Amino acid sequence: MGKGRLEAFSDGVIAIIITIMVLELKVPHVADWAALQPLIPVFLSYLLSFIYVGIYWNNHHHMLHAVTRVDGRILWANLHLLFWLSLIPFVTGWVGENHVASVPVALYGVVLLMCGLAYKLLALALVAHHGKDSSLALALGKDRKGLVSVAAYALAIPLSMLHAWIGVAFYVGVAVLWFIPDRRIESRLAP
Amino acid sequence: MGKGRLEAFSDGVIAIIITIMVLELKVPHVADWAALQPLIPVFLSYLLSFIYVGIYWNNHHHMLHAVTRVDGRILWANLHLLFWLSLIPFVTGWVGENHVASVPVALYGVVLLMCGLAYKLLALALVAHHGKDSSLALALGKDRKGLVSVAAYALAIPLSMLHAWIGVAFYVGVAVLWFIPDRRIESRLAP
Amino acid sequence: MGKGRLEAFSDGVIAIIITIMVLELKVPHVADWAALQPLIPVFLSYLLSFIYVGIYWNNHHHMLHAVTRVDGRILWANLHLLFWLSLIPFVTGWVGENHVASVPVALYGVVLLMCGLAYKLLALALVAHHGKDSSLALALGKDRKGLVSVAAYALAIPLSMLHAWIGVAFYVGVAVLWFIPDRRIESRLAP
Amino acid sequence: MGKGRLEAFSDGVIAIIITIMVLELKVPHVADWAALQPLIPVFLSYLLSFIYVGIYWNNHHHMLHAVTRVDGRILWANLHLLFWLSLIPFVTGWVGENHVASVPVALYGVVLLMCGLAYKLLALALVAHHGKDSSLALALGKDRKGLVSVAAYALAIPLSMLHAWIGVAFYVGVAVLWFIPDRRIESRLAP
Repeated sequence: MGKGRLEAFSDGVIAIIITIMVLELKVPHVADWAALQPLIPVFLSYLLSFIYVGIYWNNHHHMLHAVTRVDGRILWANLHLLFWLSLIPFVTGWVGENHVASVPVALYGVVLLMCGLAYKLLALALVAHHGKDSSLALALGKDRKGLVSVAAYALAIPLSMLHAWIGVAFYVGVAVLWFIPDRRIESRLAP
Repeated sequence: MGKGRLEAFSDGVIAIIITIMVLELKVPHVADWAALQPLIPVFLSYLLSFIYVGIYWNNHHHMLHAVTRVDGRILWANLHLLFWLSLIPFVTGWVGENHVASVPVALYGVVLLMCGLAYKLLALALVAHHGKDSSLALALGKDRKGLVSVAAYALAIPLSMLHAWIGVAFYVGVAVLWFIPDRRIESRLAP
Repeated sequence: MGKGRLEAFSDGVIAIIITIMVLELKVPHVADWAALQPLIPVFLSYLLSFIYVGIYWNNHHHMLHAVTRVDGRILWANLHLLFWLSLIPFVTGWVGENHVASVPVALYGVVLLMCGLAYKLLALALVAHHGKDSSLALALGKDRKGLVSVAAYALAIPLSMLHAWIGVAFYVGVAVLWFIPDRRIESRLAP
Repeated sequence: MGKGRLEAFSDGVIAIIITIMVLELKVPHVADWAALQPLIPVFLSYLLSFIYVGIYWNNHHHMLHAVTRVDGRILWANLHLLFWLSLIPFVTGWVGENHVASVPVALYGVVLLMCGLAYKLLALALVAHHGKDSSLALALGKDRKGLVSVAAYALAIPLSMLHAWIGVAFYVGVAVLWFIPDRRIESRLAP
């Protein structure tokens, strides 16, 4: 079975996720600069989540690029990833509305952790389908960045309860780590 | 006429349906764990509906995979299916907001029943267009799972009025039945 | 320039238009059948608009099918059509919320009229680009259905002010007329 | 790496941006023509933003048409453009809700300025990847329209603080300038 519709459907869902987050930026009823001030944490949490969803789209793009065929298990592993990604707008809104409080920041980490694990599961399903010696498996490699991210999220969740900004610092750090696209796959697949 | 745009349009509509449901998870104004408690039924109804829409996307993907061409009747049979699917966010929100009460659960079953019948109609339109001896017709077979599902929904609607959770149990049961992708088509179309 | 992205973008916009209309079906706070009663006009106006947007998608699909290339003017004629289609959710909501009152029904007709004219403009831009003797121009023909529809909308707008249901009757009548897909193009393009 | 998914994802995001803006047109609770009057500025700001997003989609379409391959930097430059475009619904809503006041009109200009700069960055990333002598680089040329637009936005922001309608006049002027599709690329790529 081809991967075309899997990519198209994922693109659609990720495009909607990344765009509906902006609906949390509620239009103020007053028309001065001061009216924007309470929106600053909402804007910053939107910015961070936009970058995260962008990272997932980028990595999904890279990973699927090396895929040649999909089966039912892969379709479900992909839907599972989309499910957790679809919760990012909710936790983003919660963090923004409450001006970066501990509990919302911790829950943000829980959702990022689940996204990270779901991405890992999708990678495993793809490798299982293509074989351990496939160019996909070689290109994905040991995925040290993925393991570091998941560990960072797991650490950030309890630390957010101590102080919300520790959690935020972790999430920003992981985003910076991923911001650089996956050179491994890019170099292997280069003509 | 090609099936490309039919698939692209269906992917778009289904991607939006699956994603706008998450908007029912309203961001709480308080930042503690207790604020999440009233959202638990909303979250669970979202999860169930996400799985149902995922099942429909998966089955749609499988069925269309075996299709070679479409006509006007098929376009309308497909839009008819999308119409009933588009009502899933509404009934999901109603079930979640009212903490799984009888009437919303029964209406949820009505919408699932109509989706099941619409899917069946689409399958019939496709078989009529491709011929009873086409590989599509053979791959779809007798569709026992489809018949069992429709019967289960029809049974679940009155039983939900007795007790809401009986209806929920039926819907979860049918979801489990469909969770396993359609091996018949997959095996027939395997190269 | 290819028509691929024009089709993909139009599919995206039309998919969103057809789906966000369902957001007007606000989830009731009470869990009994009586709570659905005030939603009946909202549901019926959603159903009519779903059929209209479906008709436009179907006809767009058919017309673009016969197109071989596009230019800047066609891109803008298409965006112009999408603009008027994007107002359908607004007028649908207004008709539904006010239980089919005269002014909303008249405005609904204005938007349908503009959609009809915009579709006509797009057809003219396509014929101008492909030539009067192209298979597209022959397939589109005199477009009697389009002319009848536009005349019916123009008539329905003042008549809605006399009685709202006269307007509704016109819109339902035109929808029935278009419901049957355009056999002219289908038969000409058949292999 | 191919450009297919970059185009598909951008189409999806732009389609959602252009469509969710219409949600700011809140359905009035009264059913007479007077109820539409307060919506006129909302409608006009929607119209202007629809045209702007349409211009970006058109130009994006033209520019990507001449692209043969993409890398990680281009994916991010594209996401950066989509980020600023995604803020257009917010500033559109703010301008419309406050009946074209100075501060919202100035902020609208800030977002247009950032969109303009982000588009320029994307063009530079594409030229860097394809080479200064590529047909893409030649087709893009000196981009005088882009420079004029950015200068006009930068000028319009402080002038909006003097009087809101001066800013609006600038934005309408730039829109008219861009309304005419980029003949340079179209003529160079013509067969």
